[in-house]
Amino acid sequence: MTKITALDTYDVRFPTSRELDGSDAMNPDPDYSAAYVVLRTDQPGLEGYGFAFTIGRGNDVQKVAIDALAHHVSGLSVDDVIGDLGGFAKRMIGDSQLRWLGPEKGVMHMAIGAVINAAWDLAARMAGKPLWRFIADMTPEQLVATIDFRYLTDALTPEEALTMLHAAKVSKPQRIATLLAEGYPAYTTSPGWLGYSDEKMQRLAREAVAAGFRTIKLKVGMNVEDDVRRCRLARETVGPDIGIAVDANQRWDVPDAIAWLRRLSDVNIAWAEEPTSPDDIIGHAAIRRAVTPVPVSTGEHTHNRVMFKQLFQAGAVDLVQIDAARVGGVNENLAILLLAAKFGVRVFPHAGGVGLCELVQHLAMADFVAISGKKDDRAIEFVDHLHEHFVDPVIVRNGCYIAPESPGFSAQMHTGTLAHYRYPDGPAWREPASVARAR
Amino acid sequence: MTKITALDTYDVRFPTSRELDGSDAMNPDPDYSAAYVVLRTDQPGLEGYGFAFTIGRGNDVQKVAIDALAHHVSGLSVDDVIGDLGGFAKRMIGDSQLRWLGPEKGVMHMAIGAVINAAWDLAARMAGKPLWRFIADMTPEQLVATIDFRYLTDALTPEEALTMLHAAKVSKPQRIATLLAEGYPAYTTSPGWLGYSDEKMQRLAREAVAAGFRTIKLKVGMNVEDDVRRCRLARETVGPDIGIAVDANQRWDVPDAIAWLRRLSDVNIAWAEEPTSPDDIIGHAAIRRAVTPVPVSTGEHTHNRVMFKQLFQAGAVDLVQIDAARVGGVNENLAILLLAAKFGVRVFPHAGGVGLCELVQHLAMADFVAISGKKDDRAIEFVDHLHEHFVDPVIVRNGCYIAPESPGFSAQMHTGTLAHYRYPDGPAWREPASVARAR
Repeated sequence: MTKITALDTYDVRFPTSRELDGSDAMNPDPDYSAAYVVLRTDQPGLEGYGFAFTIGRGNDVQKVAIDALAHHVSGLSVDDVIGDLGGFAKRMIGDSQLRWLGPEKGVMHMAIGAVINAAWDLAARMAGKPLWRFIADMTPEQLVATIDFRYLTDALTPEEALTMLHAAKVSKPQRIATLLAEGYPAYTTSPGWLGYSDEKMQRLAREAVAAGFRTIKLKVGMNVEDDVRRCRLARETVGPDIGIAVDANQRWDVPDAIAWLRRLSDVNIAWAEEPTSPDDIIGHAAIRRAVTPVPVSTGEHTHNRVMFKQLFQAGAVDLVQIDAARVGGVNENLAILLLAAKFGVRVFPHAGGVGLCELVQHLAMADFVAISGKKDDRAIEFVDHLHEHFVDPVIVRNGCYIAPESPGFSAQMHTGTLAHYRYPDGPAWREPASVARAR
Repeated sequence: MTKITALDTYDVRFPTSRELDGSDAMNPDPDYSAAYVVLRTDQPGLEGYGFAFTIGRGNDVQKVAIDALAHHVSGLSVDDVIGDLGGFAKRMIGDSQLRWLGPEKGVMHMAIGAVINAAWDLAARMAGKPLWRFIADMTPEQLVATIDFRYLTDALTPEEALTMLHAAKVSKPQRIATLLAEGYPAYTTSPGWLGYSDEKMQRLAREAVAAGFRTIKLKVGMNVEDDVRRCRLARETVGPDIGIAVDANQRWDVPDAIAWLRRLSDVNIAWAEEPTSPDDIIGHAAIRRAVTPVPVSTGEHTHNRVMFKQLFQAGAVDLVQIDAARVGGVNENLAILLLAAKFGVRVFPHAGGVGLCELVQHLAMADFVAISGKKDDRAIEFVDHLHEHFVDPVIVRNGCYIAPESPGFSAQMHTGTLAHYRYPDGPAWREPASVARAR
């Protein structure tokens, strides 16, 4: 019987703040980081990989939180874990002492998500399938059994989920063929960082359109006049047919968001992302009512399925971002995708950072194939950054993510990366200046 | 110039699970714990104390999260900190890299709260006043300056808060005299733990009434027939004039909560606490509508002011629990108390655990004296447990908390306690059996 022998963790940080890539209204100097997990087994070559994504300081806290889960993992039979991924997740989420630290939010929930994702990676590797296909090949009953419906049944019951999945099953083979032929639409945030000059933004926007992207996203929220100018410039640059989304990264109070977004109304915004606190469901609903027809969205910091449920129940959003490394792993994202499908809300997965593109593509593709059946009215965020650190990096061609073929969740980093970027003692951090900046 | 020289932290755990005190529907075996903070200064004898409360496993994660804040504290001038407690809090909450781990929720936010509370303790000690009095003696302008109104201005502006505080100022001296003469009402959860037999519950309920408490609380949510029986027994035991609250500790989905609470409708419940997920604002509103006139409440796990704001905006609760160690410290609790006063929602502070009574009494008393002006339609939870570990333990007489007189926030533990209960190497944890249980 193959056993999980250890849960190893790594504090891996990339000194991205040196270049101001990733700067936005709330996060001026992120050092993209991963609290990286390896589930080791006693079968040579068999491991599962996952991570929590952070932006620098606190990645050590995140790592310790993952370490605190070791007793839920070490010594388990691999077959027991991958044969009951729902039970595996519920035991960690239901640990009453650890639950007090959330419940189901923040550091501890992201830690649980990282371990759960590593278990799905392991399961998909053992099945010899990329994760999206591993999920697509589950029966509706198997998929529903992975989901914790606690706190959801006023909006979605297991029976409703089964009905939805059975209905989607009929044309699953055609959608798999479509996905393999076409890929899944991507949009890009590369032109839009706040640290960039107008000229750099325009050049990158032109390049994005030439590369096949149909939507670009600009960061906003520092200065309204700058935002109006940059959005108009972007519109002139890309023409009327390319979507322009804006992302305020939680910068505004509700009244500010309404006033600010009204100033941008002539640009024909594709969506306004994170206008205010990710916790403010009622606030998003108020903003949405006031700025119609500008579509409102949030989700990359929405911390669990209960919050997504309410965003949908309150009619607070036109679309949502999901994030592969924020909530309690694949299981909870499947619940969120089912909720979104039931409420008819489009999903534009959050990515970028480090490894988020690698992970979330699998969830979007599984959603298209097995759940919502839709992909052409949605897109996965793409930032062309740090992919070289992954063994199975994303491939984006002509504005589309190509379906991964390698087994697993694409979460594995190169061994050399783990060594070079290990914080604080890896070579990338040994120079005094960068070490000082990270403190 | 006096400086803060260090932020020292301790992992202190009490093996309370051995006695099943504190058992409820979600937390069967808590080991009450504190991630304890000492702000040390270079002035002999001058220190500030605070802590995050946990129930065992994960207290080490909580400690590491507090350690991650050291760079925001060490080396600061004490006068700068206590002269601008608002700015001190905002710098930690606004640390963009750490903020990613929440934002403003879970482990990182509780860590920030512990440090902020230690700074208020320090400030009150230097002023030679108990914290409630230190707050009461602030001008409205000083108090408002400590509050972060970000994400609140659609419900409460600084100007409105000032108007409320100026109005309350008029009869502040009389209320201080009233508080000193009468104390502040307490209610007790001591009879109600799920691990207790009916006989023990009845005996403790009788003792509670004899001791002057006007409200008791029973844990519910494991078995509806048991709950109906226990609540009716309790009602028979205490008579019609004593309040009986029930607390489900998040056990139910929305439809379950409605069905269950309707079964208890003949007991005349004082309030139904935490019927479902603390994140489910819309769910609480639905439950409240369905079980009227049973009052609905939540709050001990409500993770920040944005969530409280929405509970009030949505009419989701009849009353709320606040917790001194869950949110971002005194500052954020002042914001929550102002919101509650504006929306006319009664506050029944959460306490128990270890040290929560010691802390939260100050907030309730400050609210009575300086904010809401009310105390006789509300009460602070009281559990007579673990107070002996504190240098300035609460005093409850005839069902009322007596206003503390010693300077500070009553958060300081005895040095001997820190040594004896230090996890995992203190004498209390050295016996193999208890160490094994805590794993």
